[in-house]
Amino acid sequence: MAFCVLYPSLFSENLTPLFRNLRVPRGRNGARFMANSRESSQSPTKLVTFLGKGGSGKTTAAVLAAKYYASEGLRTCLVIHSQDPTAEQLMGCKIGSAPTECSDNLSAVKLETSKMLLEPLNRMKKVDARLNLTQGVLQGVVGEELGVLPGMDSIFSALALQKLVNFRSDERNAAPKEFDMVIYDGISTEETLRLIGVTERARWYLKYMRSMSEKTDIGRLTSPSLLKLAYDSINLNSGSSEGKTSTDIWNEVEQILERASASFTDLSKFRCYLVMDPMRSVSISSALRYWGCAIQAGTHICGALGFNPQSYAVTQEVAEKFSPLSFALLPYIGTDPFVEWETKLDSLDQSTKDLLGANIYFRPSVTFDSLQKTVTLFMPGFDKSEVKLYQYRGGSELLVEAGDQRRIIKLPPNMHGKVIGAKFTDRNLVVKLR
Amino acid sequence: MAFCVLYPSLFSENLTPLFRNLRVPRGRNGARFMANSRESSQSPTKLVTFLGKGGSGKTTAAVLAAKYYASEGLRTCLVIHSQDPTAEQLMGCKIGSAPTECSDNLSAVKLETSKMLLEPLNRMKKVDARLNLTQGVLQGVVGEELGVLPGMDSIFSALALQKLVNFRSDERNAAPKEFDMVIYDGISTEETLRLIGVTERARWYLKYMRSMSEKTDIGRLTSPSLLKLAYDSINLNSGSSEGKTSTDIWNEVEQILERASASFTDLSKFRCYLVMDPMRSVSISSALRYWGCAIQAGTHICGALGFNPQSYAVTQEVAEKFSPLSFALLPYIGTDPFVEWETKLDSLDQSTKDLLGANIYFRPSVTFDSLQKTVTLFMPGFDKSEVKLYQYRGGSELLVEAGDQRRIIKLPPNMHGKVIGAKFTDRNLVVKLR
Repeated sequence: MAFCVLYPSLFSENLTPLFRNLRVPRGRNGARFMANSRESSQSPTKLVTFLGKGGSGKTTAAVLAAKYYASEGLRTCLVIHSQDPTAEQLMGCKIGSAPTECSDNLSAVKLETSKMLLEPLNRMKKVDARLNLTQGVLQGVVGEELGVLPGMDSIFSALALQKLVNFRSDERNAAPKEFDMVIYDGISTEETLRLIGVTERARWYLKYMRSMSEKTDIGRLTSPSLLKLAYDSINLNSGSSEGKTSTDIWNEVEQILERASASFTDLSKFRCYLVMDPMRSVSISSALRYWGCAIQAGTHICGALGFNPQSYAVTQEVAEKFSPLSFALLPYIGTDPFVEWETKLDSLDQSTKDLLGANIYFRPSVTFDSLQKTVTLFMPGFDKSEVKLYQYRGGSELLVEAGDQRRIIKLPPNMHGKVIGAKFTDRNLVVKLR
Repeated sequence: MAFCVLYPSLFSENLTPLFRNLRVPRGRNGARFMANSRESSQSPTKLVTFLGKGGSGKTTAAVLAAKYYASEGLRTCLVIHSQDPTAEQLMGCKIGSAPTECSDNLSAVKLETSKMLLEPLNRMKKVDARLNLTQGVLQGVVGEELGVLPGMDSIFSALALQKLVNFRSDERNAAPKEFDMVIYDGISTEETLRLIGVTERARWYLKYMRSMSEKTDIGRLTSPSLLKLAYDSINLNSGSSEGKTSTDIWNEVEQILERASASFTDLSKFRCYLVMDPMRSVSISSALRYWGCAIQAGTHICGALGFNPQSYAVTQEVAEKFSPLSFALLPYIGTDPFVEWETKLDSLDQSTKDLLGANIYFRPSVTFDSLQKTVTLFMPGFDKSEVKLYQYRGGSELLVEAGDQRRIIKLPPNMHGKVIGAKFTDRNLVVKLR
């Protein structure tokens, strides 16, 4: 059997530190690797997030993780994006719309879309004053009158997170980082999954937008100025569009998206955990499903966390359901206004610390066997009937639909070919190519 | 004291049936009214939704309400938009991406954005083939390759709900309704709040877009054809743009948004409940906050529901916190795969049935006193420090910011004037005008 890992980023040059302590334990699950557990000061800012059913303790896990990282001396920022006051109660401090230090090494910020709207609008007005695209109409827009529409929360939180973690920059010219760890407690698991998948998906939209702007009359006419307006307003690379052609801008945006996409499969930059209440079956089945959804979105799950079920038998049973993921326990945190965090952190199991430190291994979710001409997709949490397989582009890729997300899998050149069969067994979709 | 209700729609002609059984109980909370509890077959489709912290039982409440309405003989559809399998488990049937009947009078559908993408794209391709705007580029877009980006879930669920409840149509030419009740279990409370506010907010964006398209060179050049493409693709009024000028289209979209906005303050079309676990303080404080957020978004809360706390004292204490809202109890529903729904429905209190039947009264959230020149805004769940007040447009309106949403309050003509003072006491912001 010849295995190779799907995500090219895992082998790209800037990731070698990840492999320095490489150990490949022999296991029944094929290729595995182990990440370095220490977060060095040279390493990039890490984005950490938690997925799970509402009420399974995502916010509590996020606060706990933030407190843990801070206690380990890492500069940590908790980012929340909800009107739910739980995080503030747990943190024991008021969380405002700019990062504020709550305790040693630990800051927190609440993303508020209504406030985030204003900054890009003001930048856009400045650019417009220079380019004179809207003949003053834009200047007359009162940003404070604009409320938040559906969808804006997601888009603006993506931009805000990007600022904090800087996934778009290449390492050579990265600005000094403000935080070692950014913990994102999103609006909902559904929305976090969209954020994880955004850069990979956006590349497809970009491709079509580019061809629309380059190949149609209306595009050739309007796109050069609109492109400059958008580029300078979003201020992606903290540079200006001055002296750049449309082609330069398109290429640059493509590169940014490519780098950001790779970040989501890179343990040194992004970590995502499942959270559940092991005593509630709905919480467990949601976590299993979100595991599959996260893979569909284009990332790996680092491990599964359950709030202490006070029963060893339950732990064993649940842990088995999530194999080969590591499963660890979090201490029970009540709803008392005052939580004794020091005691809670002291009570953390070593296995939990290892997991939060990404001292973990996982297997790739896609494996290619070029001899057998098969592609195996690990798809936990889905039923056979929910998985759909398509092929466009003459056999150079597979398109897999499940969990309300499509995912494109590029086939290695020596495996291009039409699908002649597929079967779904034991959480794996095995696709046979001609 | 002279009171008048903010929302003009409450007094509009098509709402008279709502007032037929009008009783105005004398209470300490000013103007109140009582809605008709029977859902007649002539009345419009009602949209019902639930707000609350993750894990407080929104999905359970939605399924329970759907089962209850169906048992009362109302054609009911449960709409979910999440990968969380809880609703399917509770409903005891597979929920697909088209409405399917699960039991008598009760259908269910799972909105899947990846599927919903395709239909408008295909319509857009057809329109484009006619208008030849993109010289074939649009025809080359493989919709199946496009994944779901952040924000799309919200936008497409708004369009899908609109189709089911038809808030945009005026009554004269409304199509025969498929369902009496549509129960929406959204992705998250945050997202549902955005949906509630969308039409009112979208009108402001529309105003600026219209002026952009009419007053700038680039707008005058491109907007007529883009407008037709968008109009025919979204297919808002099931008509075509043929023979319509840009002005016609803009006016029509404005009217649609106005009608839809009014629907969210109209008990005969929209009902929104708070859900909580009365035994958990975080669940209660989230519900209080979402109450305020819902008012900010532009709707009323019909009542508060708590899952049975098995303690009369707790019920009393919680109910007081939500006064003047009606508070009712829902029976405890376990996580067993098989729920005895008949027994559960039989055990519903009369007060719960009244609440679900909108047999309720509420006070307006904004009251104007033209003699004292004061405006009183009821804003539960917010701290004084979180509320911001602005005035633009020369004293004809107030702009209130709280809970990450802005809300514009038009002042009655005889009260136009600058703000000279404001104070926040007992959940009310009292604004004094010159």
